[in-house]
Amino acid sequence: MSTPLAKLKQEFAKKKLDAVLISSFSNIVYLTNYSGFSKEEREAYLFITRLAAKRAKNQQYILTDGRYSQAIKKLVHNFKSIEISSKLSFEKALKQLIKKYRVKRMGFEGNNLTFLEHKKLSSRFNDLNHFSLNNLRAIKNKEEVSKIEKACVLSDKTFDYILKKIKLGVSEKEIANEIEFFIKKQGGDISFKPIVAFGKNSAIPHHQTSNQRLASSGQFVLLDFGVKLNNYCSDMTRTIFFGKPTAEQKRMYQTVLESQKKAIQQFSNLTIKQLDKGIKASKIDKIAREHIISKGYKTIPHSLGHGIGIDVHEAPRLSPKSKDILKVGMVFSIEPGIYIPNLGGVRIEDLVVLEKKGPRLLTHSPKNLIEL
Amino acid sequence: MSTPLAKLKQEFAKKKLDAVLISSFSNIVYLTNYSGFSKEEREAYLFITRLAAKRAKNQQYILTDGRYSQAIKKLVHNFKSIEISSKLSFEKALKQLIKKYRVKRMGFEGNNLTFLEHKKLSSRFNDLNHFSLNNLRAIKNKEEVSKIEKACVLSDKTFDYILKKIKLGVSEKEIANEIEFFIKKQGGDISFKPIVAFGKNSAIPHHQTSNQRLASSGQFVLLDFGVKLNNYCSDMTRTIFFGKPTAEQKRMYQTVLESQKKAIQQFSNLTIKQLDKGIKASKIDKIAREHIISKGYKTIPHSLGHGIGIDVHEAPRLSPKSKDILKVGMVFSIEPGIYIPNLGGVRIEDLVVLEKKGPRLLTHSPKNLIEL
Repeated sequence: MSTPLAKLKQEFAKKKLDAVLISSFSNIVYLTNYSGFSKEEREAYLFITRLAAKRAKNQQYILTDGRYSQAIKKLVHNFKSIEISSKLSFEKALKQLIKKYRVKRMGFEGNNLTFLEHKKLSSRFNDLNHFSLNNLRAIKNKEEVSKIEKACVLSDKTFDYILKKIKLGVSEKEIANEIEFFIKKQGGDISFKPIVAFGKNSAIPHHQTSNQRLASSGQFVLLDFGVKLNNYCSDMTRTIFFGKPTAEQKRMYQTVLESQKKAIQQFSNLTIKQLDKGIKASKIDKIAREHIISKGYKTIPHSLGHGIGIDVHEAPRLSPKSKDILKVGMVFSIEPGIYIPNLGGVRIEDLVVLEKKGPRLLTHSPKNLIEL
Repeated sequence: MSTPLAKLKQEFAKKKLDAVLISSFSNIVYLTNYSGFSKEEREAYLFITRLAAKRAKNQQYILTDGRYSQAIKKLVHNFKSIEISSKLSFEKALKQLIKKYRVKRMGFEGNNLTFLEHKKLSSRFNDLNHFSLNNLRAIKNKEEVSKIEKACVLSDKTFDYILKKIKLGVSEKEIANEIEFFIKKQGGDISFKPIVAFGKNSAIPHHQTSNQRLASSGQFVLLDFGVKLNNYCSDMTRTIFFGKPTAEQKRMYQTVLESQKKAIQQFSNLTIKQLDKGIKASKIDKIAREHIISKGYKTIPHSLGHGIGIDVHEAPRLSPKSKDILKVGMVFSIEPGIYIPNLGGVRIEDLVVLEKKGPRLLTHSPKNLIEL
């Protein structure tokens, strides 16, 4: 199994780096499995030398302050820890490491370090090279897929639970809270704030869950939520109907469902050889999009899907302009939608893992139009 | 009343900038009061010209994509909106604005734009100048103080509620969930994940709330949590005792309480003139710290406090090395603590606003040692 560290080291060789400095929250989680640091404040760095490829632990370090010493000792075994303090600043510690390992070319995350952080580093070190780990994370190993799958199991359970709570008089916020509380009581976390949209609000793809109440029947109820479990995310959308849908509302729903099925079907149609080479993400996006347009609706006003893992949105991206190639091992959402202003919207979203045998759905909640 | 925009414009004059580009989530909230954007993805920018000082709306812009058009129209009235799309990229829109207003010197947030974002901009625009809004936000106006105060009211209410839930057999996670659910049911949000620490765990200042259960009496229960309401945060810590404390445990608690009182008292001792000039944050930190040491305990292993507002941690910082000056209008925490490994810890945290009349507490939950 290709571990995150093994993948990182292949990247080293390609870029001819002597060491890398990892600063982003998500990549620290990816490489250490530890997620106790703040996402918003700079609390830790990883420093990994090229040599680490061969001799493991002695050449890879985690730099953080005393607040985390106990946790790191207990939970992060494959990194040596260096405690940053008022006596040993991060810059000083880094300087020592660079000297110790005679690092000339050092990589850093150019899409994570800020302008000022980079400026400070570059005044001390000459050969700084920005690199990105983001594409490395796009292909998941079995362990990662299994973690995402467990998050999906809890999503399905949550959907089943929440259906019983959708009643006349309830508010979007209340439903969103119920989703969140259920997930947390089950030991999970939410991967993003649940989107709950009644009626007209479902026509806004990025609706901010409001205090609006379910005041009458005859409307769509859109639920878009995700679970975070063992650092990995799920993401799922279902649209149900409160009351009896009209023929046009049914047609709208069926069109979205067909669009999703067509996109997923496309993977099954590939030969083993084609699948091994990969397929353009933009092509899958196009298939789903054109189906919707062919039925007389406006195009999907957002991407068809996104990769998911430690972050709820990560590589690859499934959109008309995407240059990403979908490959075996990738996990992503397929989420077409139709939105008609002042009327309502339908979106159906599942997670798919691309396997050698073809696509496999990770979310299993029913997709026939549920009428409540 | 000094509005955020008025303050920003004073800053313009000082730095001789023709326009600024605002990119950080918190500063966008500060200037627009709109908080619907993602904190983790780059979804919006503000572009504000120097002229905006005089002629308002026509010279300040919000650049974001179609997902937010409706919300911006409804909620952000003092900015003109420019829709970013596949046809009009952010860079293209920015270029047009720069041309229109003949901008030569443009400011950007150096502690927010990433290395790569800056690189992309600097390849197109010559005179880019990093600047920071963070210190501007340190002094709050009346409206902001009132928002923080409302968040504090809900914190106090939450503390009162949660006391009834602390019982033999309950887990830290369950208490943390109860805190969160209560706040959300009341229409608020949490400003950070609640820290709940039983017994030995309370000795770890940054304890990650665990599944540990309250298995026996005779231990401290530390609760550190905050509310976010109308975009503004509160933050509060109380330590209570489950069972009967020993004389030493009482002494530990009293020492922390005295340390906090001494720090706050220091502001009351200032003359109006002194207060107007401001007082060194490091001096307040020292007073609290030395009291604890004088009683034979180890020094506080963290800062005495931090500013709070839109972010739960913002300027000023109250620490031994801080160079910040505490001034009228600032809101910050005072949170001394004593932590004894394998035994337990005590921290007491309140929010204080510095007013012309002296310091005023914003959190009011009881501070006598509660025995449950």
